Amino acid sequence: MSNSFGTLFRITTFGESHGRGLGVTIDGCPAGLELDVEAIQQEMARRRPGQSRLVTQRKEGDTVELLSGTFEGKTTGTPIGMVIYNQDQRSKDYSHIYDKYRPSHADYTFSAKYGHRDYRGGGRSSARETAARVAAGAVAKQLLAHLGVTIHSYVDQVGDIATNLPHEDLDLSQIDRNDVRCPDPTAAAKMETEILAVRKAGDTIGGIVKCVIRGVPPGWGEPVFDKLHADLGKAILSINACKGFAYGSGFEGVSLRGSAHNDAFYTDADGRVRTRTNRSGGIQGGISNGEDIYFRAAFKPVATIISDQESINEGGEAVTVVGKGRHDPCVLPRAVPIVDAMVALVLADHALRARSNRL
Amino acid sequence: MSNSFGTLFRITTFGESHGRGLGVTIDGCPAGLELDVEAIQQEMARRRPGQSRLVTQRKEGDTVELLSGTFEGKTTGTPIGMVIYNQDQRSKDYSHIYDKYRPSHADYTFSAKYGHRDYRGGGRSSARETAARVAAGAVAKQLLAHLGVTIHSYVDQVGDIATNLPHEDLDLSQIDRNDVRCPDPTAAAKMETEILAVRKAGDTIGGIVKCVIRGVPPGWGEPVFDKLHADLGKAILSINACKGFAYGSGFEGVSLRGSAHNDAFYTDADGRVRTRTNRSGGIQGGISNGEDIYFRAAFKPVATIISDQESINEGGEAVTVVGKGRHDPCVLPRAVPIVDAMVALVLADHALRARSNRL
Amino acid sequence: MSNSFGTLFRITTFGESHGRGLGVTIDGCPAGLELDVEAIQQEMARRRPGQSRLVTQRKEGDTVELLSGTFEGKTTGTPIGMVIYNQDQRSKDYSHIYDKYRPSHADYTFSAKYGHRDYRGGGRSSARETAARVAAGAVAKQLLAHLGVTIHSYVDQVGDIATNLPHEDLDLSQIDRNDVRCPDPTAAAKMETEILAVRKAGDTIGGIVKCVIRGVPPGWGEPVFDKLHADLGKAILSINACKGFAYGSGFEGVSLRGSAHNDAFYTDADGRVRTRTNRSGGIQGGISNGEDIYFRAAFKPVATIISDQESINEGGEAVTVVGKGRHDPCVLPRAVPIVDAMVALVLADHALRARSNRL
Amino acid sequence: MSNSFGTLFRITTFGESHGRGLGVTIDGCPAGLELDVEAIQQEMARRRPGQSRLVTQRKEGDTVELLSGTFEGKTTGTPIGMVIYNQDQRSKDYSHIYDKYRPSHADYTFSAKYGHRDYRGGGRSSARETAARVAAGAVAKQLLAHLGVTIHSYVDQVGDIATNLPHEDLDLSQIDRNDVRCPDPTAAAKMETEILAVRKAGDTIGGIVKCVIRGVPPGWGEPVFDKLHADLGKAILSINACKGFAYGSGFEGVSLRGSAHNDAFYTDADGRVRTRTNRSGGIQGGISNGEDIYFRAAFKPVATIISDQESINEGGEAVTVVGKGRHDPCVLPRAVPIVDAMVALVLADHALRARSNRL
Repeated sequence: MSNSFGTLFRITTFGESHGRGLGVTIDGCPAGLELDVEAIQQEMARRRPGQSRLVTQRKEGDTVELLSGTFEGKTTGTPIGMVIYNQDQRSKDYSHIYDKYRPSHADYTFSAKYGHRDYRGGGRSSARETAARVAAGAVAKQLLAHLGVTIHSYVDQVGDIATNLPHEDLDLSQIDRNDVRCPDPTAAAKMETEILAVRKAGDTIGGIVKCVIRGVPPGWGEPVFDKLHADLGKAILSINACKGFAYGSGFEGVSLRGSAHNDAFYTDADGRVRTRTNRSGGIQGGISNGEDIYFRAAFKPVATIISDQESINEGGEAVTVVGKGRHDPCVLPRAVPIVDAMVALVLADHALRARSNRL
Repeated sequence: MSNSFGTLFRITTFGESHGRGLGVTIDGCPAGLELDVEAIQQEMARRRPGQSRLVTQRKEGDTVELLSGTFEGKTTGTPIGMVIYNQDQRSKDYSHIYDKYRPSHADYTFSAKYGHRDYRGGGRSSARETAARVAAGAVAKQLLAHLGVTIHSYVDQVGDIATNLPHEDLDLSQIDRNDVRCPDPTAAAKMETEILAVRKAGDTIGGIVKCVIRGVPPGWGEPVFDKLHADLGKAILSINACKGFAYGSGFEGVSLRGSAHNDAFYTDADGRVRTRTNRSGGIQGGISNGEDIYFRAAFKPVATIISDQESINEGGEAVTVVGKGRHDPCVLPRAVPIVDAMVALVLADHALRARSNRL
Repeated sequence: MSNSFGTLFRITTFGESHGRGLGVTIDGCPAGLELDVEAIQQEMARRRPGQSRLVTQRKEGDTVELLSGTFEGKTTGTPIGMVIYNQDQRSKDYSHIYDKYRPSHADYTFSAKYGHRDYRGGGRSSARETAARVAAGAVAKQLLAHLGVTIHSYVDQVGDIATNLPHEDLDLSQIDRNDVRCPDPTAAAKMETEILAVRKAGDTIGGIVKCVIRGVPPGWGEPVFDKLHADLGKAILSINACKGFAYGSGFEGVSLRGSAHNDAFYTDADGRVRTRTNRSGGIQGGISNGEDIYFRAAFKPVATIISDQESINEGGEAVTVVGKGRHDPCVLPRAVPIVDAMVALVLADHALRARSNRL
Repeated sequence: MSNSFGTLFRITTFGESHGRGLGVTIDGCPAGLELDVEAIQQEMARRRPGQSRLVTQRKEGDTVELLSGTFEGKTTGTPIGMVIYNQDQRSKDYSHIYDKYRPSHADYTFSAKYGHRDYRGGGRSSARETAARVAAGAVAKQLLAHLGVTIHSYVDQVGDIATNLPHEDLDLSQIDRNDVRCPDPTAAAKMETEILAVRKAGDTIGGIVKCVIRGVPPGWGEPVFDKLHADLGKAILSINACKGFAYGSGFEGVSLRGSAHNDAFYTDADGRVRTRTNRSGGIQGGISNGEDIYFRAAFKPVATIISDQESINEGGEAVTVVGKGRHDPCVLPRAVPIVDAMVALVLADHALRARSNRL
């Protein structure tokens, strides 16, 4: 079991794809924060199925009910409980796979681990679980906004189509201007075409989300194990379909020599400590240095496809998994708000943890 | 602060580069394990400075003293305390940088966070800290060996020189046969030449460690936040100089379509559930599926170089950081046992956590 | 913040007295447990207001909605989410005290700590919060029943009226036979008379709950900090109004000499290790020894009384807190199921933790 | 396993009675604290065997070696590692009981739990383990002194001999003036006579430690589970031989009516919120209210006595445990610094946790 995340700003989630509902409890949000419930709902809308032609057409209202933790519009320091009831469950859709292991899904591993599992829509292993993360992340975002921190995730690559632009050259206020959530309009158009072609083929495609974080002051991150990038990495890798995480110069940086890779320090006109380059990705020794934090995360193609696949059932017998139903041809546009949410949760936690650095 | 790692098999470390010593306490090692103290020392030797021409020539004995937790050669279930005293400290080497921020080191961020720092050799931010991890990991490895699990990390790439061979085509028993710790002798020779050239130039170079884990049974990993790959990712990213982590098909998998990426299940001749391909990297839905687990980790070039660099001091004034002293031209050969150790710690923890899956 | 309890069988609760609802998530319940939802509701009924003349007459249905974690009647190893909506809130009842600090309540300390608080019925500091604990404890009880463990809390003392009988001489199946929840009918009758007299006087009275736990096998409890009695003590002390906890010989044992206090070991006819006396209270060195575990817990008189009291308001000005409304004259009868619940949560956790004792 | 304590100011201990040594790591001590190493050693001297005629005559220097976490006399925010080597081990003393279960010791329960145990002097179950707690607590005390908090534990009762004075009537600066550590000289003299008589009889006796804490500001304590008194209770109950904990009015308060028990609020001449009485023991709703915090803790008579006792061995056969060796006739004088230490650890932790209360 492990359905809690965070140390001081800590969430605990529950809920299955086709159970009665999902929920999350936030423990540790400081008192006195004006909480904009509508803003939570807007983040939910960014993750919601059916929001565009590029995503699954399932209909889920994803209305968040706030049950506790605020009084007269402000947080009280007590736990914030939120519930999202499931609506469009269509459990009958799944009777044909109740004992079958869908390829590259978690059906087999959940069976091997727990013995007894809810097979409907993947149960707890469904990405539906991330709805609770987004609701909690929307609260964390509001705490961070109060601290001057903003998070900008976007789709950097779909299949082989990439922006090929550094984030400094993109207008990050444009992320939600298209259905792909890529702030490079030219690349976005190509990505959209690619996703629609993949959908038509009954297939799926992967991609890369990039995230840029601005406004984090120097000093967040807790060595030696909870380094800021290590906690970000875990948070992002825990999202369904994520296969890789790299920050700063990442995998590309390994080819450089140290003399070319190092970021030189200088003092800027405002007396602030800065670095001339930012291959460190805003984090040095696991602690933020005040520069932009940025990372990339790889998402594999969704495992559910509209073709028949060979597999086995719980008895070990060969079976065919028939492709049908509604699914996401590409998880990337909906992954963006989930990445935002997980980043917000990590940063809110570290903001509080940094309060104990000094006497 | 965050100097503990793990939930049930849990380590806590302490120690600075130039303090009196380092140490680690392992809490949660089950009773009854025959502990081979010599095997711990052998892992230390794999991480030790001065072991070859490819690494720093500092002299450190790195002798581990076992202070508690065993009786008559076997663990008792009580915490295992181990201490490693520092010997070759040469603190005077560092007087020239006591108030300077070395580029791409953690000098500035530690100052910004804590106000007061031990500048000698980076203090707690030094990779010397990983000696304690290796000692603990060596105990975890012995627990895992008892469970049939083996870990094989190796150098897959140095700069632009890569093995270009899938791990299935390499003889993983040959990892320690050369100083680079690359089981592909041809690539290893080229890597060695490259590292020596870099050393001669007073520079440094990065690279990639690959890790293959065999024998993990289906069922390890704790969704939704402590997925097995998420915990591995955090563990590896917490190692000094690590910039990226990717498992299974990783960043390359994003270009594939789902129909090409999915791993088909079948039942093998022994009645075991298997997959025909392994793009999942042995983990599905965050839980091991019985196939080989594998991942790659990117390490940047070491920040300490033998050239003068422009920087600033604690007062914000421009200064020159003079390049001198002993350093690693390439951290990769010594990173291998550290990756092994962190993997062992994650797996030992998850082995115990999986004991609570079912009634 | 601290609204989670337990390590492997872990609950997280939320909810205020007069908010929309309360809830609890259980993380770590093993898969495969047949869950009797009706039995959960029965425990809620034991804690419910309005159940007898001895308790507050507020009307609360306390219906538990199970939202996740089970499938076809059995647990799946995923988190169990439960919600209890508030019904009889009567928030207007509290307008007269919105800025007043009620004596011996948590109004002042919550203000001092958080700045902003929900004053209605005490908000999060209300004992209403324990409804979520009881729902979770009812699940833990079912896990323990499967393991052969039973928990028997009862009212041992009200004011100065005590049973004066050792638990071995009481029929613990009779606890729920009277409204006081005291299995000694003679004492129960006196206690009932006392509570009704106190109620008539608009006053309140304290008392002692005793708890006897049967069937715990040797080996539960985790030294040195999570000793079984230390975790029980914390769990019980965290219940509203609890002022003391003592197990085994408790405070009385301090007067004995060691030669009189020690429990001699012997082997019984079944070859089981037993002790001839049980001043250890079933726990030695923090670990269960197979004997009955027992402890006593002191509960102060409820702070809400029907008399006017002098106090101050948030501005520090002298005010009168007018006594009115519904309240419990004696918390003891309703404390019994709460003690049961907290004990069940501690034991379920330790049952799982003990699985990692040995290789 | 559970050898860590605390959330933000967190210690991890190791070590057996007759192993090579003990140790503790403090993780989370803020940077910038001037650390007085001599003061740590002085607390060790208060716990040390052989300090007076009233305690065991074992000789242990208990020298603390500080290995990390400070630089130039001040803490750096990195973990503080301390080691205490064992000296006077006399392992041969214990060969006569290697397979025997000493009555009311943890020999049997450790065997039942772990299978394999270090029988020498009780191994990890020995109160020798608390030496590491005292070393860590001495650091916590220094942090608290910086915050204006002082801790005053003393012996309130030995056997049936009690001070019978409220703590307000005692001069708490006199605690260390006599060997018993009771600030009431008349009672102290009687207690000393009693302990010497018990020692002469080869027997042991229990007692009660009282603790008074001054200077804690309003707002420390984390409802609903980590209430300040619940964490204090757990900390104290985790000390060897402790059987009970009660704060404020404790077990005596149950006989009072609410109207007599409630503490009335008023504003004092300095504008501070105060209560006229303090039956709450300085904690309301689990949060400090600024008044003195006080509690009492019961300690049973030490189990080791100088008489033969009937018992069994690991094979279940009847044996005689021969009484011999050095032991404490009364644990109370040495329990005082251990109580101090555990209180300091709890308070240091809560001081840091309270930093996240508000925006």
